[in-house]
Amino acid sequence: MKRYAYFISDGTGITAEMLGNSLLAQFESIEFERVTYPYVDSAEKARKVVEEINRNSADEAVAIIFDTIINKSIRAIMDDAIGLKIDIFGAFLDPMEKALRVESSYSVGKSHSAKDTGYLNRIESINFALANDDGGRNRHYKEADVILVGVSRCGKTPTCLYLAMQFGIKAANYPLTEDDMESMNLPAALAPYRKKLFGLTIDPDRLAAIRNERRANSRYASLKQCYHEVDEVEQLYQREQIPFISTTDRSIEEISTRIMAETGLHRRMRS
Amino acid sequence: MKRYAYFISDGTGITAEMLGNSLLAQFESIEFERVTYPYVDSAEKARKVVEEINRNSADEAVAIIFDTIINKSIRAIMDDAIGLKIDIFGAFLDPMEKALRVESSYSVGKSHSAKDTGYLNRIESINFALANDDGGRNRHYKEADVILVGVSRCGKTPTCLYLAMQFGIKAANYPLTEDDMESMNLPAALAPYRKKLFGLTIDPDRLAAIRNERRANSRYASLKQCYHEVDEVEQLYQREQIPFISTTDRSIEEISTRIMAETGLHRRMRS
Repeated sequence: MKRYAYFISDGTGITAEMLGNSLLAQFESIEFERVTYPYVDSAEKARKVVEEINRNSADEAVAIIFDTIINKSIRAIMDDAIGLKIDIFGAFLDPMEKALRVESSYSVGKSHSAKDTGYLNRIESINFALANDDGGRNRHYKEADVILVGVSRCGKTPTCLYLAMQFGIKAANYPLTEDDMESMNLPAALAPYRKKLFGLTIDPDRLAAIRNERRANSRYASLKQCYHEVDEVEQLYQREQIPFISTTDRSIEEISTRIMAETGLHRRMRS
Repeated sequence: MKRYAYFISDGTGITAEMLGNSLLAQFESIEFERVTYPYVDSAEKARKVVEEINRNSADEAVAIIFDTIINKSIRAIMDDAIGLKIDIFGAFLDPMEKALRVESSYSVGKSHSAKDTGYLNRIESINFALANDDGGRNRHYKEADVILVGVSRCGKTPTCLYLAMQFGIKAANYPLTEDDMESMNLPAALAPYRKKLFGLTIDPDRLAAIRNERRANSRYASLKQCYHEVDEVEQLYQREQIPFISTTDRSIEEISTRIMAETGLHRRMRS
């Protein structure tokens, strides 16, 4: 028996998905068929969505409907959909208006304006992450908020990009190779920026699996090599007092926010 | 008078921030000082947060407190914080349990597990976007879900990365240059993948401003050149029936989700 979960928004639907998925994750035993309807910004579109939902609702399984539509008259149309409505804005805007003693602007799609103060910051930070990826080409480490270090394939690049995209943080990264490890010293390019360094580590078995997908049966992907590199790199972190975190079994979101919490970096928010 | 907004979570805090900012955006006249407390996963940490909040609350301005802590006993501690509590999980888990006829697992930090089915998809898609950026090196267009085209600096790269990071979509991009425009034809590399193409366009004045930050006073950044390129590229889209969207005044989130809606791409969700 399928059980539907709907995410409905007059904007991107991302807020509805994030909140909805956080709530659905609390019901591990149930498998949900997830459907997102973004840009439901007219009565006509809303009626079509209601029709589709109700067509799917023939069986007994109650659908869960996450609704982040701001416009009151469009939201009212959603009342006809069969299922449990989780009306996030409806539930909270009222008490907020009272506490703040201000009327809210129920304008459609207000919540994700491109004029966010953080927007240009984020684009600039993405470009920074791309230009300072993998120790390559440019090394504008003076401008960096943080420089991630770690062995090849431990998760540096996606973490840098996430820090840029989500928080407008300028994150560079530098791969630690065998040469760096054997010299027993920090690479010369990094030494002046020791305070900006943050280490990533990873379970060696997991690392070998990831590397094998890239270059199967290579020395690079061998268990022996992976154990060796991870061991060396963790020793380096300890010797040089570089804070570090394991990426094993952690999402990019979690790695990123833990780095920010530990380094005291301030989120340059989307607002 | 400062007015505080707090985002409190036993996980990354990202859900609390997203939902909170969507709600705060409805109160345009008020400026909020935003503070995020991630990983509040013990009674001790919660008490410290409450102390900090209450220390800030000496004046009359009511603080807004967005709380996504799952653990009931930790959440109970937050009751002592002075301000309007927006308790997202508290408000919705109860009716969901009744509708679903299942108890929810109030386990700490459940909501963002790294074992998400979409996780590996996303990493793979980020690598794909990086390897197929800017028409360069690899051109694994067969594997691509979508190929973004457009003039230099119109927003292709951040959009590709966002599609990868958020939705696990494999997005390549290809910059249209003057040579492509003058030939009156699609570039040969793209011709076999016409159905995967999606065009970006941009207001020429905005484009000139962006390009000027890169190479001030160059021909590349001149108004004349920008008007010419945008005009040519939009003609190409129309001639070749390539769907397209303007990135001017749109956030990366909105551009990405609109592309997905128009192309019918399915979100590979985080679950």
